[in-house]
Amino acid sequence: MKKPVKSWLIATTVAATLAAPAISTANSELERLTNNPANWATWGGNYAGTRYSKLSQINTKNVKNLQPAWTFSTGVLRGHEGGPLVVNDVLYIHTPFPNTVYAIDQKSRAVIWEFTPKMDADVTIPVMCCDTVNRGLAYGDGKIFLQQSDTVLTALDAKTGKRIWSVQNGDPKLGMTNTNAPLVVKNTVLTGISGGEFGVRGFLAAYDINSGRLVWKGYSMGPDGDTLINPNKTTTWENGKVTKVGANSSTKTWEGDQWKIGGGTTWGWYSYDSDLNLVYYGSGNPSTWNPVQRPGDNKWSMSLWARDADTGEVKWVYQMTPHDEWDYDGINETVLVDQEVKGKMRKTIVHFDRNGFGYTLDRVTGELLVAEKFDAAVNWATHVDMKSGRPQVVDQYSTEYNGEDENTTGVCPAALGSKNQQPVSYSPQTGLFYISGNHVCMDYEPFEVEYTAGQPYVGATLTMYPAGVDAKTGKSNRSTNLGQFTAFDATTGKIVWSIDEPFSVWSGSVATAGGVVFYGTLEGYLKGVDAKTGKELYRFKTPSGIIGNVNTWEFNGKQYVGVLSGIGGWAGIGIAAGLDTGEESSNSEGLGAVGAYRSLSSFTKLGGVLTVFALP
Amino acid sequence: MKKPVKSWLIATTVAATLAAPAISTANSELERLTNNPANWATWGGNYAGTRYSKLSQINTKNVKNLQPAWTFSTGVLRGHEGGPLVVNDVLYIHTPFPNTVYAIDQKSRAVIWEFTPKMDADVTIPVMCCDTVNRGLAYGDGKIFLQQSDTVLTALDAKTGKRIWSVQNGDPKLGMTNTNAPLVVKNTVLTGISGGEFGVRGFLAAYDINSGRLVWKGYSMGPDGDTLINPNKTTTWENGKVTKVGANSSTKTWEGDQWKIGGGTTWGWYSYDSDLNLVYYGSGNPSTWNPVQRPGDNKWSMSLWARDADTGEVKWVYQMTPHDEWDYDGINETVLVDQEVKGKMRKTIVHFDRNGFGYTLDRVTGELLVAEKFDAAVNWATHVDMKSGRPQVVDQYSTEYNGEDENTTGVCPAALGSKNQQPVSYSPQTGLFYISGNHVCMDYEPFEVEYTAGQPYVGATLTMYPAGVDAKTGKSNRSTNLGQFTAFDATTGKIVWSIDEPFSVWSGSVATAGGVVFYGTLEGYLKGVDAKTGKELYRFKTPSGIIGNVNTWEFNGKQYVGVLSGIGGWAGIGIAAGLDTGEESSNSEGLGAVGAYRSLSSFTKLGGVLTVFALP
Repeated sequence: MKKPVKSWLIATTVAATLAAPAISTANSELERLTNNPANWATWGGNYAGTRYSKLSQINTKNVKNLQPAWTFSTGVLRGHEGGPLVVNDVLYIHTPFPNTVYAIDQKSRAVIWEFTPKMDADVTIPVMCCDTVNRGLAYGDGKIFLQQSDTVLTALDAKTGKRIWSVQNGDPKLGMTNTNAPLVVKNTVLTGISGGEFGVRGFLAAYDINSGRLVWKGYSMGPDGDTLINPNKTTTWENGKVTKVGANSSTKTWEGDQWKIGGGTTWGWYSYDSDLNLVYYGSGNPSTWNPVQRPGDNKWSMSLWARDADTGEVKWVYQMTPHDEWDYDGINETVLVDQEVKGKMRKTIVHFDRNGFGYTLDRVTGELLVAEKFDAAVNWATHVDMKSGRPQVVDQYSTEYNGEDENTTGVCPAALGSKNQQPVSYSPQTGLFYISGNHVCMDYEPFEVEYTAGQPYVGATLTMYPAGVDAKTGKSNRSTNLGQFTAFDATTGKIVWSIDEPFSVWSGSVATAGGVVFYGTLEGYLKGVDAKTGKELYRFKTPSGIIGNVNTWEFNGKQYVGVLSGIGGWAGIGIAAGLDTGEESSNSEGLGAVGAYRSLSSFTKLGGVLTVFALP
Repeated sequence: MKKPVKSWLIATTVAATLAAPAISTANSELERLTNNPANWATWGGNYAGTRYSKLSQINTKNVKNLQPAWTFSTGVLRGHEGGPLVVNDVLYIHTPFPNTVYAIDQKSRAVIWEFTPKMDADVTIPVMCCDTVNRGLAYGDGKIFLQQSDTVLTALDAKTGKRIWSVQNGDPKLGMTNTNAPLVVKNTVLTGISGGEFGVRGFLAAYDINSGRLVWKGYSMGPDGDTLINPNKTTTWENGKVTKVGANSSTKTWEGDQWKIGGGTTWGWYSYDSDLNLVYYGSGNPSTWNPVQRPGDNKWSMSLWARDADTGEVKWVYQMTPHDEWDYDGINETVLVDQEVKGKMRKTIVHFDRNGFGYTLDRVTGELLVAEKFDAAVNWATHVDMKSGRPQVVDQYSTEYNGEDENTTGVCPAALGSKNQQPVSYSPQTGLFYISGNHVCMDYEPFEVEYTAGQPYVGATLTMYPAGVDAKTGKSNRSTNLGQFTAFDATTGKIVWSIDEPFSVWSGSVATAGGVVFYGTLEGYLKGVDAKTGKELYRFKTPSGIIGNVNTWEFNGKQYVGVLSGIGGWAGIGIAAGLDTGEESSNSEGLGAVGAYRSLSSFTKLGGVLTVFALP
């Protein structure tokens, strides 16, 4: 095989050659849109998912003067994940179930059109594991794509909101739902599937943007024909080198037919390298959460994937957490950044996993370059062996080693991960990644569970609590902080700075050329910090807890920062599901079920509001 | 009887004498609290209901720099009427059904306590005529009083939120509900009742603040023993003078027992003059809306009342709209202001009625001083005859004259009135009242309806549309504005200035010593205007349409302005009840039912957020 650097050079050359006569496909329109920082046209601001904006009107000097410019209630309560898209001056926002979409005119701040799909709440909501969230829309080719909770993927006319087509992507009766934002790549729109806690087998699917026809579908597990793994071409990192996976690389790591209900769902974020024509994403936890019931590595759950955008064929795949024992669901975003690692410029893919390790790989070949903890609390593995690429699991924290019906205590991170789906940002100015993190540990007790289609298939109970150690040093402290916001160097695997937060940071951040990084907190604060030092420069208490992603754009010469507030998601499910306070309760004693987040109820209540900020 | 001026002088003297050794009752504590503009301790800011604040930190010069300081989602959607109370630095807010109460610490902006009563939604919500609103809380004697939708009146410990007592004030199964804010007067808490569209007979009730025991209850209609009218003492304005009402003044104006289901509900605002020891308020429309079914004046529906605070005995009563034919429900607030009318200082009561006339009376005696239109569109009566106190009805717009099953067209104002419940403000600096108004006319068709307990008892259908005339001149124009914000001189009955608004102004205003008057709009704007000229000085788009009242207070040396946004109420019921847009609708074509307000759906969606403003 080619050496990484060489193939990167070739890819660059090819792209340069093709640039002039490029066929106008959705992705070239999208690349053009995302090159103009006035837009925020994909979930990540660009195909690379860097969540970096070239806008600098708001900077470290003046951000203290930032103020809400306007606000818009979505009319829906519960968890508002994802963020607004801005395309050609029109703002598109989405809501949790019932997944209403609004197109908003920024000048009049009026609704141009709205769309609410018809869905059966009684069928869909009961099989949504962790609040009724939706992570947002995709734009491409004059269309807005909505991935509905009930798995229906819908294309709307971006100008009128009229439905162009809809396609059924799964079956909620079998526990399938969707929470992810789709991504338009060339003439397809990519989407995945949720339901790892219902034994759903994950896949990434590409639908034709004009007709909704399925173009390709690659499963996370199963025969090579299902996974679109080419045994003769597809590689993985093994024995210190990029190695062909060979035949049946997935099925041989499962006992019997367990792979058919094996999880590996795909509800995270997708990125794309147009030079390489590769699509990147992560697959989720194997089903069930009880590791004893599924011997083997359970490939390719918990893996990073690089697929050919046209055919879905797998270029390379890398499993971060073989044979998961902790629900370290591997779906977190993949960020595509070219950076120098150990003296060599690399086209890298950077991924901060729920398992607490930050991975840097060569995205051309899948070569593992860096794998280091981004929270010093992580204790389930001592390190990742760079030769095998495998984490070195500590017996004490192995829920399989301790066995079924045994409580494994003090595992860090908890199941919700050192980081969950909330995407990081990356600033080329600092070369740092900004990670919204959890600082939570758990007790985990696996138990035997039987599979029934469409029924929960979890197989473990768990309790979560603050890590109680310093996020940078791992030294024990008495802190009860449940989260932090961390700057990380992915070329060296080092934490540069970290801000303790009382609760998990469940909001995707945005880095800007103004040197300010923005993120939201569960109490509802939008915060702006110095990208270099982490010093807090601005905060504002939005109506409800923030689990949405902060985006930024320009309109009429002015830079705006916008975020959806609306508490919910896994960390906020206690409030979202009304567990925080009972009727007739006259204080917040009633939270109960979501132990660690109990006090959150003092700070925020259900909501659903877009807050847009600007300088005066 | 005494001449008005003399009795005013006597009252003043008595009050001055008693001031020093006054017994510490709730009302003296409340008067003290409301004298300190750091608090906003009653719905009206003070017992007089002026909604005027002595704070001047925010003024006409700097209000352009105003900005949201923080926000708080209530966790409840639908119409948020009323406004926040601020007592000794603690902020108390309420929600529509389910009537959650929050005590919020202004420093940490965290919830100190919350309380949600247990209510049966299936029994209560169906009998709430016009959205599930609640107009706010009352404070007194260390307690927060919540008048629940289901008619239960509850006293909570202001420090802890623990319930001290609850009392049943009515029966939802008979169509009784509550939407009003209570008012603490001396050792009682006053409340009324809603349900005029269900044949409920209105009353004002005073409950002991310590025990919840009923102290007195005065009905709007019925035998003198029910109304607490003293035939030998109670007066009204008649034949150009203050005249005793005599025996059976109510029942003799009804046919048979119709008064028993006669309406005259009391869901507005109550004010109090501690010198006179009189409580003031207005009673609502007679039931049914079909005037043919209830011959007579239907006293004392549609009346202003002055009752003794200790006994409930009626001092005077004045009927604004005898034998209502248009649902010109008389519950609007009563503002107690001392002002010079025709060269004489008077203790006046000022009331802007749904029927479009602004009334100024001597509040000591009930002498009618001024009755003039505050919207030139008003056409149902040419004027109020000052001798009889009766409006001079125009046959063309008399729905009784035109008869049952006949459509009377072009009546101005529409049933929701030239002004609805949203309270006015008054500035002693300008001597002007600031009126949040509707500019809407209607077609009205009465029909025969039979009474069944607990069932709607309406008896008319109506269609509403913009007045299409200038609010100041009455001259026809092509404007489609549905509302205006008007400055009015209640001593002369003249409009001073008026700002057209595209939609009804359904938000109570506040006037400040800084020379700025604030109000909210149905699109969601908080606006600050110059009290003298009406010039707009500030606007901010809050998350949802504003039907709440703007209040102002001080904390830590800073002046704050706060308002609940959350579209709903009668004008916003189309959106609140989900009539604005159907599922699968991709534009706002679906509003339908609430014709005139159809386009509101383009500007705002359901919400429930407190927005608190301050200077940077």
